Amino acid sequence: MRVKIVSTGRHLPERIETAADLAPRLGVTEDWILSRTGVARRHVSSESMAEMGARAARQALGDGPPPDLFINASGVPHQVLPDSSVYIAEALGFAGIPCFSIHATCLSFPVALHNIGALIAAGAYRRVLIVSSELGTRGRNYDEPESASLFGDGAGAAVVEPTPEGEQSAILGFELSTFPKGAGFTEVRGGGTRLHPQDPRTTPADNLFHMDGPGIYRMAVRRVPPVFNRLFARTGVDRSRVKFVITHQASGPAVTVVEKFGFRPETIVRRVEEEGNCVAASIPMTLAWVHQAGSLERGDLVVLCGTGAGLSILTMLLRW
Amino acid sequence: MRVKIVSTGRHLPERIETAADLAPRLGVTEDWILSRTGVARRHVSSESMAEMGARAARQALGDGPPPDLFINASGVPHQVLPDSSVYIAEALGFAGIPCFSIHATCLSFPVALHNIGALIAAGAYRRVLIVSSELGTRGRNYDEPESASLFGDGAGAAVVEPTPEGEQSAILGFELSTFPKGAGFTEVRGGGTRLHPQDPRTTPADNLFHMDGPGIYRMAVRRVPPVFNRLFARTGVDRSRVKFVITHQASGPAVTVVEKFGFRPETIVRRVEEEGNCVAASIPMTLAWVHQAGSLERGDLVVLCGTGAGLSILTMLLRW
Repeated sequence: MRVKIVSTGRHLPERIETAADLAPRLGVTEDWILSRTGVARRHVSSESMAEMGARAARQALGDGPPPDLFINASGVPHQVLPDSSVYIAEALGFAGIPCFSIHATCLSFPVALHNIGALIAAGAYRRVLIVSSELGTRGRNYDEPESASLFGDGAGAAVVEPTPEGEQSAILGFELSTFPKGAGFTEVRGGGTRLHPQDPRTTPADNLFHMDGPGIYRMAVRRVPPVFNRLFARTGVDRSRVKFVITHQASGPAVTVVEKFGFRPETIVRRVEEEGNCVAASIPMTLAWVHQAGSLERGDLVVLCGTGAGLSILTMLLRW
Repeated sequence: MRVKIVSTGRHLPERIETAADLAPRLGVTEDWILSRTGVARRHVSSESMAEMGARAARQALGDGPPPDLFINASGVPHQVLPDSSVYIAEALGFAGIPCFSIHATCLSFPVALHNIGALIAAGAYRRVLIVSSELGTRGRNYDEPESASLFGDGAGAAVVEPTPEGEQSAILGFELSTFPKGAGFTEVRGGGTRLHPQDPRTTPADNLFHMDGPGIYRMAVRRVPPVFNRLFARTGVDRSRVKFVITHQASGPAVTVVEKFGFRPETIVRRVEEEGNCVAASIPMTLAWVHQAGSLERGDLVVLCGTGAGLSILTMLLRW
């Protein structure tokens, strides 16, 4: 699919909460947080996900024209109805621009990017904005210190256009696999019709994030390698040629484990120490960080990858 | 986009609740409900949206092979994380099939169909399952009789494949416009990070459906005609040639008003009296009803259309 990410945006709220700040609230030490999760600090927002998303979007849109399609690719919504795209669009002053949401948990951004690649290739749109914006800290369960010390708030955005004649930017490959046997590993059980907020059976913990880290790890080490192997077999690309691996910043150990899948350690971008796990915003925020640091050159091979609640596994190869 | 809906599925729960059954709970009469909403009866589920969705999906899949992609296109989730596709996939026994959700409120099904058209055209997938499943009755606010008497439960599904050589099935046109000024007309304000279930400011009504029917009507009569006009101008098709108009079954008056947009009354399919407003499931349930009645022939022109929370307006033209 001949599409090009023409610009990126990211927003981090001003207020920083360190592992030392958070530790007493969780009844653990700063060292415990650092050794388990690798998250030294996170940013915490006083704004809504829509306002944060609009900030990242404005940076990505810059002085360019408005998009002809906008997709929200966040894991947790602003509210149940309408979908969150509408509230980000409202904050951006859009009127009439088509909007909807793609929800693939922490992998929403690359899934949306793949859909956009197909829509642009089909000639349906010519300038598409994607935004992922997350208030991960609002779903923390303080009785579950390991998951509660992971999350941060933030937003990432990108603008995608058809690749101009003579240029090489493209989505070269995309692989997604979902194993519902892992659905219970990462959950917010409330908020929908299963355990409605008004249902007397719904407990406070049901409305907060729950994670079984070892369960994810055991499933992922077995299920991830074939997904990478399919990506590189189908594209015919050697993974040693990849310049940057933008993985979901799930946790310190989760980013480190990507080394096992045949990538050189220096290609794996780490933001988790500084920003925590920003749910679906992690991938676009990390991509925007690399892009805005000036490290990406057109033609570079970039992998987007990660595991998400589901359990879903995604690998995607871009030529920048 | 050369894609073909090869099969459809629909599920209606067994238990029926009539306007007469519901009226006392709302403090209104049966006639009041019938005249305002046109909903004579609705089906009410004791199963989850995932179980209902799986029933409709099994009917659509029939004896065929499993899909290579599954998209949940429902307006209200089973729970916040993972997205609902995972739970429908789990009920279907899928393992490894890629899954995600597209959320465009009541218009989720046609938006997903358009995405699928592009993905299939790009060669990314060859057999895609879409399911919309809704428990609208769980979000009813009994203090708001007009909206509370609209909703029903149900699920619809379809399987989409590339159009074989020599056949003409296609998505001929697609138009979507979103006007966030209308966001407050149709809302469930709770369930996300805006008014989190645990937030002391969240009221019970925030977790239930709220609708400003006159507000939607005023915006829709002004905003819908240009969207239809664009569809028929761009496709070059005369709307008198459309055989079936499958509109979102928002309410009796909302279905009737489609006559104003230049379609012959006998082409507008009405299921709202029997099934109520099944949120995003209305469009695929209505499409499946027409298809399973044997009324659709290959080559027929079919319009999918509706307004959804946002306010979003969608029109789509298919050659069956």
